[in-house]
Amino acid sequence: MANTLASIITIGDELLIGQTIDTNSAKIAQMLNAIGIDVIRRVAVGDNKAAIVKALNEEIVAADIVLITGGLGPTADDITKPLLCDYFGGKLVVDEKVLAHVKGIFEKRKRPFLERNLKQAEVPDVCTVLHNRVGTAPGMLFEKNDKLIISMPGVPFEMEAIMQDEVVPLLTAKYKSSDVIVHRTTITAGEGESFIAEQIQDIENSLPAHIGLAYLPSLGGVKLRLTGKAHDLALLTTEVEGFQQQLATRLEKIVIALEDKPMEVLLGELFTAKGVSVALAESCTGGYIGHLLTQVSGSSDYFKGSAVCYANEAKESVLGVNSNTIGEYGAVSEQTVIEMALGAKRIMNSNIAFAISGVLSAGGEDYRVPVGTVWTAVTDGENTKTKELRFYHDRIRNKESAAQMGMLMIWRFLNNKLK
Amino acid sequence: MANTLASIITIGDELLIGQTIDTNSAKIAQMLNAIGIDVIRRVAVGDNKAAIVKALNEEIVAADIVLITGGLGPTADDITKPLLCDYFGGKLVVDEKVLAHVKGIFEKRKRPFLERNLKQAEVPDVCTVLHNRVGTAPGMLFEKNDKLIISMPGVPFEMEAIMQDEVVPLLTAKYKSSDVIVHRTTITAGEGESFIAEQIQDIENSLPAHIGLAYLPSLGGVKLRLTGKAHDLALLTTEVEGFQQQLATRLEKIVIALEDKPMEVLLGELFTAKGVSVALAESCTGGYIGHLLTQVSGSSDYFKGSAVCYANEAKESVLGVNSNTIGEYGAVSEQTVIEMALGAKRIMNSNIAFAISGVLSAGGEDYRVPVGTVWTAVTDGENTKTKELRFYHDRIRNKESAAQMGMLMIWRFLNNKLK
Repeated sequence: MANTLASIITIGDELLIGQTIDTNSAKIAQMLNAIGIDVIRRVAVGDNKAAIVKALNEEIVAADIVLITGGLGPTADDITKPLLCDYFGGKLVVDEKVLAHVKGIFEKRKRPFLERNLKQAEVPDVCTVLHNRVGTAPGMLFEKNDKLIISMPGVPFEMEAIMQDEVVPLLTAKYKSSDVIVHRTTITAGEGESFIAEQIQDIENSLPAHIGLAYLPSLGGVKLRLTGKAHDLALLTTEVEGFQQQLATRLEKIVIALEDKPMEVLLGELFTAKGVSVALAESCTGGYIGHLLTQVSGSSDYFKGSAVCYANEAKESVLGVNSNTIGEYGAVSEQTVIEMALGAKRIMNSNIAFAISGVLSAGGEDYRVPVGTVWTAVTDGENTKTKELRFYHDRIRNKESAAQMGMLMIWRFLNNKLK
Repeated sequence: MANTLASIITIGDELLIGQTIDTNSAKIAQMLNAIGIDVIRRVAVGDNKAAIVKALNEEIVAADIVLITGGLGPTADDITKPLLCDYFGGKLVVDEKVLAHVKGIFEKRKRPFLERNLKQAEVPDVCTVLHNRVGTAPGMLFEKNDKLIISMPGVPFEMEAIMQDEVVPLLTAKYKSSDVIVHRTTITAGEGESFIAEQIQDIENSLPAHIGLAYLPSLGGVKLRLTGKAHDLALLTTEVEGFQQQLATRLEKIVIALEDKPMEVLLGELFTAKGVSVALAESCTGGYIGHLLTQVSGSSDYFKGSAVCYANEAKESVLGVNSNTIGEYGAVSEQTVIEMALGAKRIMNSNIAFAISGVLSAGGEDYRVPVGTVWTAVTDGENTKTKELRFYHDRIRNKESAAQMGMLMIWRFLNNKLK
């Protein structure tokens, strides 16, 4: 049996003028992938009838399942619902269950229910309604020549709820794939794509046809993704993990993790495993590392806080950095970040502390170091390690890189891999 | 003359398995839109020859310009360059200028130049090379039946540099559009799509055919985007801005801005205009508001810092919150955020301070308030305003909403619009 193929159509002018970044497609693809369904194409079109119909016609031919997001709101620019109704030869009728649900939401939010909101409860009489637990626009399922067409709202968390509650269970039941897909990603840091390719050429050449290797450059490193597809899950997993192990052994010095997890999650696991609490002193990253660490559920168990001291006077008054240190060496210096790290450890009463101070873009205050210079320090009170970094891009990108490299430094410190 | 139409093809398996979110398409669309070129479709395909060729065939028919990103790296999974070479009937040759540039980059980064990297300097002899100032993979321009096909690397900042340096000037010169496009976005906060639609129905109905209105729901509010297309830029601008003014007058109570700028940028302008410095005390947002404020260039002029105190003991030791206050009212309470705000103002020596403390997801420490409860306070030392917020989603989304609502609260405080 051939694999089940899916295509995603996202609808909205905002996607074509670049006002909105499409995160829905990635989320849908992840969820389909997890149940063995291959996404073969993603198409974005505007709020334009002809363009939507063209995309529908093409994708229904190419795929077994077409998933659509967007254009289901209550306002005039939302044209998807009547269009699908026409396309599948139905007529719009009020669905009583949806109506009760929509009215309930308005009551809960203490908003008046307007005539216009009745439209939210209308669905084509030729579709199956997919319940939207978290919003007013229902999902819709159509069938045509044994193909499934699924329409969902464009609001990301509403789409996600419908995928989770309705679409994934439905597709899992209908398409019992004969093939399974196994991905294994290895995260490396510190070397480029070409260098790595050179190191692992023989392993790459030895991969069988049903296992592929992709290089995904990311900030500070490269992710290596092995993807296998075969009938037997257990056998395939063993096989893919065997190759991953070969890669990890060969690249031992630069491998950070054998799972595709963000650094803040890897760090959270490390803090928890070692029973270590952490505090930060951030200058140039402005709170970004604290933000990342607290994206992780349960981070309150190990994260004490971050003293974001952008102004020099705050470095002194909050972290107790000596004004002579800043005066003599500058705010972006090894001496200053050491005092910042020790200060953060002291005021937050943590086991370890990390400090970062730098000039990310021209216009920064410290003219003693070139733009792009960042100093970092990590300490457990007894041992303090420092590192100077250099970044060459714009403010936003340099900040992202600085945060990633900073977290990598904490990771290496705790793994005794810091020179 | 008809408008110039563009289509974007992004290439990479990572896009189809949801490992990577496609930000390139949005960026390209923005840049094309600014020079009057309409993006009509965006298609994402995998690292698969047949799929890429199919997409090329289709998009070359549909559009005047096809922009491609991805698949230009030095490794085996990068198949775009040889494919385009075949597609346009050329052969790969080493470009001496590109070679010198690539070697220069390796020298600068102190990396060994490998045999494999020679491939980076190969280009099809039927293309025009588009210089990549910031990376090793050159862009390529092909022409076929008066259509332009442009291939760029998938690394976002490399793509952006090539667009800026090469593609935009080239397209601006070639396609002097007879029509111009004018967008004006109005940001509102506090009301939903349906409510707004009801309020402005008559204005929406009075829009001429060449001006459209789109509702873009966003965290905490709705953006209203007017898009006009016509020959005369000055005339069209006046017309679109006239309608925007009508919307703004009608929706006066909920309008935040007449420009599509993130709240951190609007706040930055406000701090600068009023000559006010700001400090934060963040608990549940973990540094995220500080991060957002410091995304703005020049933020060091008004942002003093943020005391991110996740642990209660840090709220006491760093911000001077009275332990009795936390004991009696809880860490998520009006009393605590007031003391946090006053503490942040004191230790950072700022003109105003904002504090936020809440429980964003189950598993948080404070069981005295329901999950989703967030308390905020803003103070200038004399006046202190507080507000209780409630969020109903997951941790990540609640944090994003809390940060947006928090910044909105600072904005309203400074505009004397806080009840």
